[in-house]
Amino acid sequence: MGASQDYVHGYSGRERERLADQADTLAELLHSDTFYPPGSVVLEVGCGVGAQTVTLARRSPDATIVAMDISADSLAAAEERIRSAGFRNVVFLQADVYSTTFVPDAFDHVFACFVLEHLSRPREALAHLRQVLKPGGTITVIEGDHGSAYFHPESPHARHTIRCLIELQARAGGDSLIGRTLYPLLLASGFRHVTVTPRMVYVDSSRPHLVEGFTKNTFTAMVEGVRERALAAGLIDEETWEKGIGDLYRTAEANGTFCYTFFKAVAKR
Amino acid sequence: MGASQDYVHGYSGRERERLADQADTLAELLHSDTFYPPGSVVLEVGCGVGAQTVTLARRSPDATIVAMDISADSLAAAEERIRSAGFRNVVFLQADVYSTTFVPDAFDHVFACFVLEHLSRPREALAHLRQVLKPGGTITVIEGDHGSAYFHPESPHARHTIRCLIELQARAGGDSLIGRTLYPLLLASGFRHVTVTPRMVYVDSSRPHLVEGFTKNTFTAMVEGVRERALAAGLIDEETWEKGIGDLYRTAEANGTFCYTFFKAVAKR
Repeated sequence: MGASQDYVHGYSGRERERLADQADTLAELLHSDTFYPPGSVVLEVGCGVGAQTVTLARRSPDATIVAMDISADSLAAAEERIRSAGFRNVVFLQADVYSTTFVPDAFDHVFACFVLEHLSRPREALAHLRQVLKPGGTITVIEGDHGSAYFHPESPHARHTIRCLIELQARAGGDSLIGRTLYPLLLASGFRHVTVTPRMVYVDSSRPHLVEGFTKNTFTAMVEGVRERALAAGLIDEETWEKGIGDLYRTAEANGTFCYTFFKAVAKR
Repeated sequence: MGASQDYVHGYSGRERERLADQADTLAELLHSDTFYPPGSVVLEVGCGVGAQTVTLARRSPDATIVAMDISADSLAAAEERIRSAGFRNVVFLQADVYSTTFVPDAFDHVFACFVLEHLSRPREALAHLRQVLKPGGTITVIEGDHGSAYFHPESPHARHTIRCLIELQARAGGDSLIGRTLYPLLLASGFRHVTVTPRMVYVDSSRPHLVEGFTKNTFTAMVEGVRERALAAGLIDEETWEKGIGDLYRTAEANGTFCYTFFKAVAKR
C-alpha cells in the first residue's frame, strides 16, 4: 500500500513465496479468532498477493470480502490464487487507501494485515477507514514489530542486519515498530473499544515447523531481502551483513531459539 | 541464590514490596498451570522471601513444599509470610543449590522461579537438581528475560538504563537474558521432554492493573533499584539515568505501551 514502489520488501518471486510460507505458518496464530457473519461485507485493505485473503475467505465463507490493493500485479496474483482455491466470496478492487471513493458507511468490517507498517500516514488512513465503516462496524488490524525480535545465541551482527531493515522501511515512510503502537494509534484515529492482543511466536528445535516456516523462511528471508539496498545505502558492510545473516540462521540450529511478536487489534467505529 | 551478597536486586524493604507486587500481578500468568498432586514432595529452590511459595502452597494444598534458600533473613521472612497466611504444607531449609546434602531421588518435583538468572553456573545447578529428582519427576523453571522488554514511546535512554541492570547482573555472575535459553539449557543439563512456553505481559492503558502492578511497580522499580550501583560503576551518567527512568514511567501514561516476556519450562528427569 501507499506508493507501491516504496514497498520495502519488493515484488519478486521469492517475496511471493515468503509471503505464502508466512501466511500458512501463522494463519492459526493470527486469524483463529476472526470470523465474519453471513451477509457481512468486509473490506480487506492492502490485500497484496492474497496471502491473508485466502484465510479470510475460508474462515468466513458466507461473508463477502472486498480485497483492495494499489498494485495491479499484486491484485492479479491474488485473484489467481483465490480462483484456483475455489473461493467465490471475494471481489477485487484497485485503489489507494488514502483516496478510495467509497461512500461512507459502506462496510460492516475492515481488515488490514501488514499494511499500516508501510504507510507514511497510518493515522490518516485509519481515520479514513473509520468513515467507510457502518455505525457499530469493527476494524481488525494485524501488524508485526521488528523490534520484538530476539534470539539465542545473541548476536550484535544479527541485530545490525535487522536494524538495516527497520531503517530502510523508515526511509520509505513506514514504521516496522508499529505493532506496539496499535492501541494509541487506533484511539488517536477516533476508534473506540480498542482491544490489543499480542501473538508471540516462540521457536525452539522442538518446533521444527516453526524453525523452517518462521525463523528461516519468514523472518530471516525477509531480512535477507533488503541486502542490496542496505549495502547500497551504506548502512552496513558486506562482511558484517554475511556474519549477521549467518547468525540469524544459527538461531535455527539445534540449540537456538527465536522470538517475535505480532499484535492484533480490534476496535469499533 | 548463589552467593547472597551478589543478588543484584539487594535485600531492602522496597525490594520485598516489589517482589510481593510482582507475585500478585503475575501469579495467574505464571502459575495457573502448575499443580502438584496430593502427597507429592516438591523442592522450591531459591524461595527468597516466599513470594512464589504462597502461590505454590495455595495451588497445591495437599503437596508438601520444601522451600529452600541460602539467605537466613529471606527464609525468616518467607516463613513469617507462610505462617501468617495460614499454610501448613511448607517446610523451610537453608541450603545452597550447589552443595545441598539431599540424597538422590528425594523429590517428586523441583520448582525454581527467578533463580537461575542469578547463578553463575546454571547448568551445573540444573544437573545437580536433576539428581535429587525421583525417576519420572519433573522440574519447572520460570525466568524473565530483560532483553524481551520493549515499549512505546521508544527511548534510547530508557534502553540504556535497562542495559545497566543487565550488565550489573552479568558482573555479579548472572544472566538476565536467560529466559530465551531455557530450552537448550535444560537439554544440556540432561533433562528430557523439555517444553517451553512464553508468558508475555502486554500493557496498555486499557489494563490499569498492569500499568501499576507491572510497568511501574515491577519492571521500572526493578531498574530503579540499581541506580546507585550503575552510577558508581560508571555505566551511565546521572542525567541519562534520570531521563531514562522518566521515559520508562512515560510508557505507563495514557498512550504508552509496555511488553515483557517470561519463559516457563517443564522438563522430565
